[in-house]
Amino acid sequence: MISQSDEYFMQIALQEAQLAYREGEVPVGAVITCNGQIIAKAHNQTQKLNDVTAHAEMLVITAASNFLGAKYLNQCTLYVTLEPCIMCAGATYWSQIKHIVFAAKDPKAGFLRLEKKILHPKTKLTHNIMSNESSALLKSFFEKKRIKNKS
Amino acid sequence: MISQSDEYFMQIALQEAQLAYREGEVPVGAVITCNGQIIAKAHNQTQKLNDVTAHAEMLVITAASNFLGAKYLNQCTLYVTLEPCIMCAGATYWSQIKHIVFAAKDPKAGFLRLEKKILHPKTKLTHNIMSNESSALLKSFFEKKRIKNKS
Repeated sequence: MISQSDEYFMQIALQEAQLAYREGEVPVGAVITCNGQIIAKAHNQTQKLNDVTAHAEMLVITAASNFLGAKYLNQCTLYVTLEPCIMCAGATYWSQIKHIVFAAKDPKAGFLRLEKKILHPKTKLTHNIMSNESSALLKSFFEKKRIKNKS
Repeated sequence: MISQSDEYFMQIALQEAQLAYREGEVPVGAVITCNGQIIAKAHNQTQKLNDVTAHAEMLVITAASNFLGAKYLNQCTLYVTLEPCIMCAGATYWSQIKHIVFAAKDPKAGFLRLEKKILHPKTKLTHNIMSNESSALLKSFFEKKRIKNKS
C-alpha cells in the first residue's frame, strides 16, 4: 500500500473547510486517519448546530471514536486546517491522539499561545502543511463577512 | 421569586454526579441556570458514549444552547462539581458564560494550573461550594475502582 502524504490528507481537510465556507460557517475542516486510512471527516458546525462546542476537531474526535468503538485515538492522526483552540487541544489530550498536523497558525485563539504545553505528552505535533491555502480560505470568509456586515 | 443559593444548585449538580457514579462514570455533574432557573443538567458520560469529549460541562453547554436556541450563554451560570479541565474551560470561553461555580479543585487536570487565564474576560469564577461532598464522592469512586482492579 502506498502511504499517502500529509498534504494528501490536509487537502481532504481543506475540502471539509470549503464545505463549511459554503454553509456560512468559519471554514475549518478536519480529518482523522488510522493506519493511513481516513476514518472520520468533519467541518465546523457552530452556526448550524447553534453550539459553540461544535468545532471541526470536536466533531471529528467523536466520529472517530464512534467508528473505532474506542475512546482513545493513540494510533490516529488528526489533520486540521487551523491551529486548534484551547478547547480542542484539551480534547486531543483526553483522546491521547498520536499525531496532530495543522495547516495555518491562529495566534489569537490557538493553543500555542499558552506557556504550558497542554497536549498529551505522547502527541507529536506538525504544522505549516498547506497553511497558505487554509489562510486564504479563512481570509476570504472574514472579508466577505465584513462586507456583508457593512452593507 | 425567592432566589436560590449556589448551594441549592450545586446540590442538584451533585445529584447528577451521583447518577454518573451509579453508571460507573467518573462522578462529575453539572447544571446551567438562567435567571435563577435550571435550563440544563448533565453528567459525565465518557464511558457510555465511548467519547472523551462527553464531560458533564460539554454536555450541559450543548443542552443549554439547545434549550435557549442561542450559542451564547452570557446570562447563564454553570454549576459543576469538579474544577473544569482545559477542554471544558475552553468551551466556557466560547460560550461567554457569565459565571462558573465549581465545587472541588482538581490540581492534576483542572484549568487553574495554567499560568494564563483562559476563561472569557467577562466570566466570573466562584469555587469551594460543597467541595467536601464532591471530593468524597470522587474519592469513593476511585477507591472502589482500585479495589476492583486489584481483585
